[in-house]
Amino acid sequence: MPPPVTHRQLRLDADLPLDCGQLLPRPVIAYETLGTLNHARSNAVLVCHALTGDQYVASTHPITGKPGWWTRMVGTGKPLDPERHFIICSNVVGGCMGSEGPASPHPDDGRPWGLRFPVITIADMVRAQAALLDGLGIETLLAVVGGSMGGMQALQWAASFPDRVRSVVAIAAAARHSAQNIAFHEVGRQAIMADPKWMGGAYPVGSGPANGLAVARMAAHITYLSEAGLTAKFGRRLQDRSGKSFGFDADFQVESYLRHQGMSFVDRFDANSYLYITRAMDYFDLADPFEGLLAPVFAKGKARFCIVSFDSDWLYPTVESRRIVQALVAAGRHVSFVELSSPFGHDAFLLDPPGLNGVVDGFLKAVEQGG
Amino acid sequence: MPPPVTHRQLRLDADLPLDCGQLLPRPVIAYETLGTLNHARSNAVLVCHALTGDQYVASTHPITGKPGWWTRMVGTGKPLDPERHFIICSNVVGGCMGSEGPASPHPDDGRPWGLRFPVITIADMVRAQAALLDGLGIETLLAVVGGSMGGMQALQWAASFPDRVRSVVAIAAAARHSAQNIAFHEVGRQAIMADPKWMGGAYPVGSGPANGLAVARMAAHITYLSEAGLTAKFGRRLQDRSGKSFGFDADFQVESYLRHQGMSFVDRFDANSYLYITRAMDYFDLADPFEGLLAPVFAKGKARFCIVSFDSDWLYPTVESRRIVQALVAAGRHVSFVELSSPFGHDAFLLDPPGLNGVVDGFLKAVEQGG
Repeated sequence: MPPPVTHRQLRLDADLPLDCGQLLPRPVIAYETLGTLNHARSNAVLVCHALTGDQYVASTHPITGKPGWWTRMVGTGKPLDPERHFIICSNVVGGCMGSEGPASPHPDDGRPWGLRFPVITIADMVRAQAALLDGLGIETLLAVVGGSMGGMQALQWAASFPDRVRSVVAIAAAARHSAQNIAFHEVGRQAIMADPKWMGGAYPVGSGPANGLAVARMAAHITYLSEAGLTAKFGRRLQDRSGKSFGFDADFQVESYLRHQGMSFVDRFDANSYLYITRAMDYFDLADPFEGLLAPVFAKGKARFCIVSFDSDWLYPTVESRRIVQALVAAGRHVSFVELSSPFGHDAFLLDPPGLNGVVDGFLKAVEQGG
Repeated sequence: MPPPVTHRQLRLDADLPLDCGQLLPRPVIAYETLGTLNHARSNAVLVCHALTGDQYVASTHPITGKPGWWTRMVGTGKPLDPERHFIICSNVVGGCMGSEGPASPHPDDGRPWGLRFPVITIADMVRAQAALLDGLGIETLLAVVGGSMGGMQALQWAASFPDRVRSVVAIAAAARHSAQNIAFHEVGRQAIMADPKWMGGAYPVGSGPANGLAVARMAAHITYLSEAGLTAKFGRRLQDRSGKSFGFDADFQVESYLRHQGMSFVDRFDANSYLYITRAMDYFDLADPFEGLLAPVFAKGKARFCIVSFDSDWLYPTVESRRIVQALVAAGRHVSFVELSSPFGHDAFLLDPPGLNGVVDGFLKAVEQGG
């Protein structure tokens, strides 16, 4: 039986200060919770979602009808267990599933913010989450957990609110976006902005740049998978066994798969949100305030860290996790680091839980026991 | 002093039979030659170009004004030396620099072929080159040389015309396109076809889908470079040292570089040609006629082979070259295989000649000496 889930939206009490210098006027944050906050308020776990994720971490997605994106990790008997934890997952600010973002109505005129929405950062996302926790009466998190951009937020928590986190789990993440990461995102943004239906970001709700967004998703999706994984799953197999079409239809299964990924994505995601969130990721570099040094980022607080990478992840490869671990150790922090073997590339954090679950479960239980 | 270059177009004597089953009516082939064919007609070297290359291998490009794309390899004192060799480089059939392609006038109505142009293959490109050589009175090639898609053509020569090639030099190539290779090409094609100016391929000359083609080029360009190379060249450096714009302009140098790559490409390349040539590459699998076995492909002829890969090339990684070498050895062929170390990724075949030139020079001189 799936755990009971609560969906809510909270309009923050105060304007949200942003890294760009602007204030976001009392933004709405949409979130899902599972489990019960204990009397000591010591069992709260914040799950942070990835670029195209949302708050539906363990409940049916209202648009796609698919199960929550991390039901392999979150649920009764799973490492994040509503029997034991009060689990919170909120849609990032800038997102499009109920939190304030470019598709939300602008307070002045009720029309979508569009490009009037301020450019946000990973630190802004975390600041919004902290304000949400304030609203929920939660001072300290047992753990902040996330993969990919979710892992970036988890690391940012340790930097921004070191005294509010007892542990940080960052999976398939990095402490900065590389030139190649930025390059792939820029291709996606250019694909969106090249679509005439983008209209400088001022497209009407429901008729955005679907073609451009689909191309952006296709390009990104390749980076989530490994070359070996693509070969194992599709190889050069044709859609039609009778042969090639000698045309431009999707002859190869991998083409058909990619087209499907692109087309289905546009039903559930806002193109402007895609611009803003990729921008936030590109801007992410935890070491920025310390002239490129990462260890000082983690100087404060007492959080324990669990860093997990996957050997076939070429988007945020193990070398980026090692860099984080080195900084944590240099900062005198307690860190558990595991590189897992998986054929699934970056997407392994969603798809490959057997090894991952054991690691996260053991780490969290040790934190709970104060070990 | 640059060697004298001859530019010509030849309309073939006969229709060109294609793998798709159609005949291409007497196509025009544009080519450049350097050097002089000797009396024995034994010094002809065919250079095959890559996806976005052309016949301007060692002379100024008429559109960009840039030097020929392989002046580091071709020229007096270089491995391909017009003092010694008669060097031929032709624009592939399906191309857009003078050879018959989708932008050429259709023989029936004089309007561009557009999507009426038949889908071509790497073997069709090679068949057109062989017909060109027939027209030039050249029966046997001292060598056929190419990198990337040029290397695919060189390998195809050994398969299609084993008795007409004395040696084959295939650099940064593969004997088939992988699922990941196909996936990246499909993103590019979708970007072009999503551009409303593509008009089902029937755009007027000079007003094609520039935005879509630029996005396609940007996505492809990332695959030509290595992650380490991008980091070394750009890292996270900003265009404007004073800081981030908190907008969607090109803040990072790598973004600006990519945008330039995309924008400058559309001045010199036809979008439909991009569709056709990427399709030809995706269809390429030398082992297709032998149920996936590669050794039988190389059973005939006496050509010697030189196979070169680069350690940072993740588009056609060394493992693909090793597969070719294994098949060649299994087929009893003489093969020299070198993996070169380079930071430049796939583009190393254009950029990194010191090691490469020594290998190609030594190999070709041994072939010339009948060694």
